[in-house]
Amino acid sequence: MSSTFPLNAWYACAYDVEVGRELLARTVCQRKLVLFRRVDGTPAILEDACWHRLLPLSKGRLDGDEVTCGYHGLVYNADGRCTRMPSQETINPSACVRSFPVVEKHRFIWVWPGEAALADPALVPDMHWNDDPAWAGDGKMIRVKCDYRLVLDNLMDLTHETFVHGSSIGQQAVAEAPFVATHGDRTATVTRWMENIDPPPFWASQLRHGLGREGQVDRWQIIRFEAPATIAIDVGVALTGTGAIPRDGKDSDRSQGVNGYVLNTITPETETTCLYFWAFARNYALADQRLTHELREGVARIFREDELILEAQQQAILDHPDHRFYNLNIDAGSMWMRRLIDRMIERETGGTTPPQRVIPLRPAA
Amino acid sequence: MSSTFPLNAWYACAYDVEVGRELLARTVCQRKLVLFRRVDGTPAILEDACWHRLLPLSKGRLDGDEVTCGYHGLVYNADGRCTRMPSQETINPSACVRSFPVVEKHRFIWVWPGEAALADPALVPDMHWNDDPAWAGDGKMIRVKCDYRLVLDNLMDLTHETFVHGSSIGQQAVAEAPFVATHGDRTATVTRWMENIDPPPFWASQLRHGLGREGQVDRWQIIRFEAPATIAIDVGVALTGTGAIPRDGKDSDRSQGVNGYVLNTITPETETTCLYFWAFARNYALADQRLTHELREGVARIFREDELILEAQQQAILDHPDHRFYNLNIDAGSMWMRRLIDRMIERETGGTTPPQRVIPLRPAA
Amino acid sequence: MSSTFPLNAWYACAYDVEVGRELLARTVCQRKLVLFRRVDGTPAILEDACWHRLLPLSKGRLDGDEVTCGYHGLVYNADGRCTRMPSQETINPSACVRSFPVVEKHRFIWVWPGEAALADPALVPDMHWNDDPAWAGDGKMIRVKCDYRLVLDNLMDLTHETFVHGSSIGQQAVAEAPFVATHGDRTATVTRWMENIDPPPFWASQLRHGLGREGQVDRWQIIRFEAPATIAIDVGVALTGTGAIPRDGKDSDRSQGVNGYVLNTITPETETTCLYFWAFARNYALADQRLTHELREGVARIFREDELILEAQQQAILDHPDHRFYNLNIDAGSMWMRRLIDRMIERETGGTTPPQRVIPLRPAA
Repeated sequence: MSSTFPLNAWYACAYDVEVGRELLARTVCQRKLVLFRRVDGTPAILEDACWHRLLPLSKGRLDGDEVTCGYHGLVYNADGRCTRMPSQETINPSACVRSFPVVEKHRFIWVWPGEAALADPALVPDMHWNDDPAWAGDGKMIRVKCDYRLVLDNLMDLTHETFVHGSSIGQQAVAEAPFVATHGDRTATVTRWMENIDPPPFWASQLRHGLGREGQVDRWQIIRFEAPATIAIDVGVALTGTGAIPRDGKDSDRSQGVNGYVLNTITPETETTCLYFWAFARNYALADQRLTHELREGVARIFREDELILEAQQQAILDHPDHRFYNLNIDAGSMWMRRLIDRMIERETGGTTPPQRVIPLRPAA
Repeated sequence: MSSTFPLNAWYACAYDVEVGRELLARTVCQRKLVLFRRVDGTPAILEDACWHRLLPLSKGRLDGDEVTCGYHGLVYNADGRCTRMPSQETINPSACVRSFPVVEKHRFIWVWPGEAALADPALVPDMHWNDDPAWAGDGKMIRVKCDYRLVLDNLMDLTHETFVHGSSIGQQAVAEAPFVATHGDRTATVTRWMENIDPPPFWASQLRHGLGREGQVDRWQIIRFEAPATIAIDVGVALTGTGAIPRDGKDSDRSQGVNGYVLNTITPETETTCLYFWAFARNYALADQRLTHELREGVARIFREDELILEAQQQAILDHPDHRFYNLNIDAGSMWMRRLIDRMIERETGGTTPPQRVIPLRPAA
Repeated sequence: MSSTFPLNAWYACAYDVEVGRELLARTVCQRKLVLFRRVDGTPAILEDACWHRLLPLSKGRLDGDEVTCGYHGLVYNADGRCTRMPSQETINPSACVRSFPVVEKHRFIWVWPGEAALADPALVPDMHWNDDPAWAGDGKMIRVKCDYRLVLDNLMDLTHETFVHGSSIGQQAVAEAPFVATHGDRTATVTRWMENIDPPPFWASQLRHGLGREGQVDRWQIIRFEAPATIAIDVGVALTGTGAIPRDGKDSDRSQGVNGYVLNTITPETETTCLYFWAFARNYALADQRLTHELREGVARIFREDELILEAQQQAILDHPDHRFYNLNIDAGSMWMRRLIDRMIERETGGTTPPQRVIPLRPAA
């Protein structure tokens, strides 16, 4: 039982295109999985260890909807039941491997590593921008050697852009602008508006692509966490004073701006490694394939800057087992995020989570 | 005290040609050893750690029959007694390193890591085909990152050939043919006959080399385990119906066939790594050096396929510490093999071995 | 609390030239440090972990005398006090990282990892030959994967030269000559004179460089340990019988010889790794840059021979956790060295050190 992630949740384990008629090995929440598609195209996920001698089934062969172990040839159907054994006709009734609930949605394959009976497809996190025709974009998966919650921390507080990503999206305004943190039962939201600023290089370029315009902007970052591991960030800029900022009860008018969503879902592999799936979707220049390519690689470069920080931070946490952490004002969103995760774990374990080293309850000062 | 291997046994620690007038470091049963030949050619084996400051003696120098430590120059004779110390004339009477019983036989150097008084040369396993003029062949040593018993499991059940070695020696007939498992006090034997089958590519080729013939064959695999770590496999094919199968009290007539021995002896280095010595000897085309070379490299290729499986299996066993293993009918030989090893360990420890995760007593179904 | 090194001591953590206006990460006594120079050139040392989320400050930026964390932009002054936080004006009064006492002396940056109040600059070990105009030389730093005391052992007994460094400074005379070991409260000294010998290749060459002479020599090695981790070795040769050997109450006359100092200070990084700083200073041919270069690289070659031995020895110690060590006569200096270290540790811990596996109190036989 880990105290760092709930099991009763949907976690992305692959991009849709990664899973086909080959066996694919992945680790989710310390469980070894083998992924494949049945002949009819639907995805299936089994435990990646043969019942007989534990050889990973991913080292075997997919025939029709059945997997043959690459050592002694035991055959399993897509439900994990053994249907064939070498040199014997009777099959031991206990011979099976675990199968896992699986849903394909919003371009990801989602697995439920906990109790199958609780696996409600309605609980899959909202990542609809990733396959909505009104939005265009693309993404990647990277493996980061850190606790998945460090990636979530990173995304819940974007002041780090100023210091980590100074050459692209960072600017002093991000660290200076006030923000509002709110939360619900399963979500936490951090909203930050930066009024009448020079757009940083990235957004100046997007404004030219999307609107053919230049000038001062109002910039927004609306970070929405959905427990336990998904963050969709509504980002963009609009020409200053054109009504993008919701005020006096009026709705936001973003028609004089460009809007993107940074979609992130982070899946614990182990307690100190994770799979980080992300995409960037935009609502302008939808058919511009070159821009899609450029944005994907540009965001990938930015995330590599984060990766270095996150892995160094994980190593430092392991090196300082007794460190007591304090929170700053900027950590308000991250604190709610961690509380919602802890509540999910508590509900599963029927008790309280071990005290969290990383998140005391009140911000400092 | 390990529960995975007996110490009172002969283990191969090197091919004869590997040991000469240089110091060679090897690990056997978690003991660090240094091997060399005396001036008269006889092999000697000492503990590979200087009595004074533990520097491996293998980093020192061999002069005559004595080893000089490469740090402070303590000198040891081939019995492990210190004969010289720097800057002092009196030698501490406790100054010695352990020497190990050693036998050179059947092209291997064998070491006895347990009680020296019990080291009876008559107990060296039978590998005589390896230097018998009626047989020709050659072999190799590979280091495999797995418990040595996983290699033995692999050899005691050759149905895996069908799934792991499909392009060379594997064929459906191996997984389908019935077999008989028997055992004695120190040996376990699995015998399988496949009657009137198409020879797989490897054996079709050997039949052409050995007899200049083609056609349907009777194929045999007689796997003989000699505790704790040696397996000699009598393999071959003969033209169908020419009397190779022993039947009605008649001896086997293999004159219309070709015969080989797959010789295997596996030495635990640690609980999760081993040295795997093997050779392939044949009774046909004895002078054909090209065939010897081809067979050695061909078998090496086949064993590399096993190596990948075995290391993946070892990793999976470490990843699933609570897995309960079941046996299939095909595991009958392997079960006896493991019971004979466990008995040897019990005799040494004067008690019972810890319960074996890997081998329950009755086959499933 | 480690039982292998005292904390209340000055340890070299860098050569002077290594520290400048960039942030440099080092580990000393299991503490992660970041080193830099202030605008006025004086060195400063802070804990290399941001108070907020532990990211190493060495991954941040130096501006003036302040360090900005590379994640969220917290700013620390050279005393370790936080002077700026993102998005908030009030600074938590506990927000600081530890700063360490630092002294620059004899071409090294010295840090005091223990109680700051005890950090008396007068306790910096004597390495004055390293920046004395009467001496010329140069040195290096290497990271060795062993307990720092194994390096000290190595230096306290130079008989190993005979066996490890036979092609340069080693000769049978070193292992055969008698020596005298003495000690004080913080120092231990081993003195060895080799009378009327052929100089080994290294010293024959130095005699030609320094005096333009050849011939039989008297050779000396006076090894002086200063607790806890510094050894200065007075080494040299003089033409035989010219008065270098102090005798009958007369002072040593080294005018017909050449003299060097092998300066060594070894800093524990962890219990099994260390930073080894060394230099070789000479009192002849002071302006000969080519000789300085040649000596530095020649000594580096010799120390690489030691490095292989030391790392193999460390591995062997870890592999033999129950080994009981005996001492030879040659270990007298090393025994005193270890006792002085143990006394420093005892004074810090207010008790006794755990029993030392490595050093019993009486030499064997």
